[in-house]
Amino acid sequence: MSVQNPLSRTDCAEQVNRVLHDFCKSQIIQAGKIDARYARLWQAIDVYLQAGGKRIRPYLMLLAYEAYGGEVTEGAIKVAAAWELLHACLLIHDDIIDRDLTRHGQPNIAGVYEKLYQADLGNETAHYAASAALLAGDVVLAGAHQLVLESGMPAEDIVLVSRQLNDALFSVAGGELLDIEMNMQLVRDANPLKVAKYKTAQYSFEFPLVCGALLADVPEADIARLRAVSLHLGVAFQLTDDLLGVFGDEQVTGKSAHTDIREKKRTVLLQQAFTSLRAEEASRLEDLLAPSHPLTDADAQEMYRTIEQTSAKEAVTHLVLENIAEATKGIADLDIADVYKDDLIALGEKLARRTV
Amino acid sequence: MSVQNPLSRTDCAEQVNRVLHDFCKSQIIQAGKIDARYARLWQAIDVYLQAGGKRIRPYLMLLAYEAYGGEVTEGAIKVAAAWELLHACLLIHDDIIDRDLTRHGQPNIAGVYEKLYQADLGNETAHYAASAALLAGDVVLAGAHQLVLESGMPAEDIVLVSRQLNDALFSVAGGELLDIEMNMQLVRDANPLKVAKYKTAQYSFEFPLVCGALLADVPEADIARLRAVSLHLGVAFQLTDDLLGVFGDEQVTGKSAHTDIREKKRTVLLQQAFTSLRAEEASRLEDLLAPSHPLTDADAQEMYRTIEQTSAKEAVTHLVLENIAEATKGIADLDIADVYKDDLIALGEKLARRTV
Repeated sequence: MSVQNPLSRTDCAEQVNRVLHDFCKSQIIQAGKIDARYARLWQAIDVYLQAGGKRIRPYLMLLAYEAYGGEVTEGAIKVAAAWELLHACLLIHDDIIDRDLTRHGQPNIAGVYEKLYQADLGNETAHYAASAALLAGDVVLAGAHQLVLESGMPAEDIVLVSRQLNDALFSVAGGELLDIEMNMQLVRDANPLKVAKYKTAQYSFEFPLVCGALLADVPEADIARLRAVSLHLGVAFQLTDDLLGVFGDEQVTGKSAHTDIREKKRTVLLQQAFTSLRAEEASRLEDLLAPSHPLTDADAQEMYRTIEQTSAKEAVTHLVLENIAEATKGIADLDIADVYKDDLIALGEKLARRTV
Repeated sequence: MSVQNPLSRTDCAEQVNRVLHDFCKSQIIQAGKIDARYARLWQAIDVYLQAGGKRIRPYLMLLAYEAYGGEVTEGAIKVAAAWELLHACLLIHDDIIDRDLTRHGQPNIAGVYEKLYQADLGNETAHYAASAALLAGDVVLAGAHQLVLESGMPAEDIVLVSRQLNDALFSVAGGELLDIEMNMQLVRDANPLKVAKYKTAQYSFEFPLVCGALLADVPEADIARLRAVSLHLGVAFQLTDDLLGVFGDEQVTGKSAHTDIREKKRTVLLQQAFTSLRAEEASRLEDLLAPSHPLTDADAQEMYRTIEQTSAKEAVTHLVLENIAEATKGIADLDIADVYKDDLIALGEKLARRTV
């Protein structure tokens, strides 16, 4: 594979989707040997995986792998797809925590099972639909390891990737827990950048990039550079997410408007807004955002107007651009061909400008 | 290590407990580098793991490993402890599904977090305590893989064990799903023996035994024998569980009396009771056990008396003994030294006679 022609994001997504679909087909057959009801769970997983997703993590893994001299074989694509399955497990479990029933505008696993269980379970439906989703997340995580085990890579490489997948899960679970517990803190005491680092930047950027680089022939010094670049990209990504969570177009994002306000999410955006409020205004918002206060639509509207009146949106937009600029500088220093640098920079800019 | 002196169950449990505690200590330190709140989760996991448990799965893995010529090194004990972590993940997630807050008579992870979150979250406590437990289960599962990766075993052996852990999770998740969905079936249509096979026998007996055997030098023919023995041991174990779930002594089991009746569990015991009921009695019980019917204490009492009046208890006890006898026959045919056969038979009998 020539350096002038790295795997495009579209090609990567197609290959990863194919591997994931083939994997699910095989799991549906295996599960069917146990019971048709278990095959049904894997069918739901298959549909869920094909419903959407940017395949950013597999792309980053393969980009780093190619950039440092790896050849994109079927085995490498399986390893890349494993990062998508880790991501899917996290989304499925995250949706349970957030009690979301849709993803990419379609029912997620719990959403599918709500429909399946409704007639039998009545009031108990939500709990058991979430239970089915809990199990789905578990087997999807096992699936990530299985894809790596089936990659045909040498045992040493399989061990390397398993270690990265495990370390990524360790870190993101910490970020997820902090995210839950941050909602019990005052807005001014929260540390959303720390959550962004552990819940987003590391597993979405750092671990896939480092995994691909380590599987190929990365110079030691570039590992630290990749970590620094990843943190900037991850923070930019999360800050953009925060902007969309308040100002995003419901029609485009597929999420309800002001979703972060309704979830009382402590974001950098919210903290920025707080800095320009008078003490009594800030104190009133802390009261509305307390976990014990049931937020009404009027409260959410009030909060939205307050944030809108400040310069928080501009401040966060500026932070996004700063982080993209820092990432771009770091990428320039990497010991890889320009074509890969350009792709990585383009991805960063695309993520920062995204509307969904 | 001499064949005359296999690792005793007590020694095994001590070694496994030590490895698990050391592992948790290291994870507490790593998690603390992210945040004290994440370290707190690992502290809860440490306490949970040391609170109890028979360590049957590590024991079976090491027994098979020794019996087929493996030497019980520190690495082998780490791999054995990984099977305990897989089990712990499953218990933690199973308790979420069953909405249980205690295990071994102490608060489980969700139970610990209910106390931690109560003051902040009020009505929302149960959901977020369960969310913390969900994350705990995820990182404990990653911990199982990590212990294997840290075992110092050759990469090929690490790959072999990872595959067994993954396959075990695939199978037990299927069993767990069937268990959930069985409660939506009529008692007479349920297949509790299938659930026992996939939810209990395979991951608790078959996979640990086969994993230990494959790591050592097992003759091909013994793999099938181990699988057959495991199924009998697993079914005997589950049937004993069913007896304890209805007739167990609350003071001894640490579970509330008639727990299976309250959970409307479709068990072999219940089906045995049904066979001697008149049609209208059976139909009444089906009504009481329908998922839509909120079971009262009086209902549970009625159900208990009905089961007690039949010969179901004797029939199931007989089935337990039959399965133990079949397992014993299978064990006799294994190509291992008598001392290991005796230990395996003793374990089977002990599990069948257990009161907790």
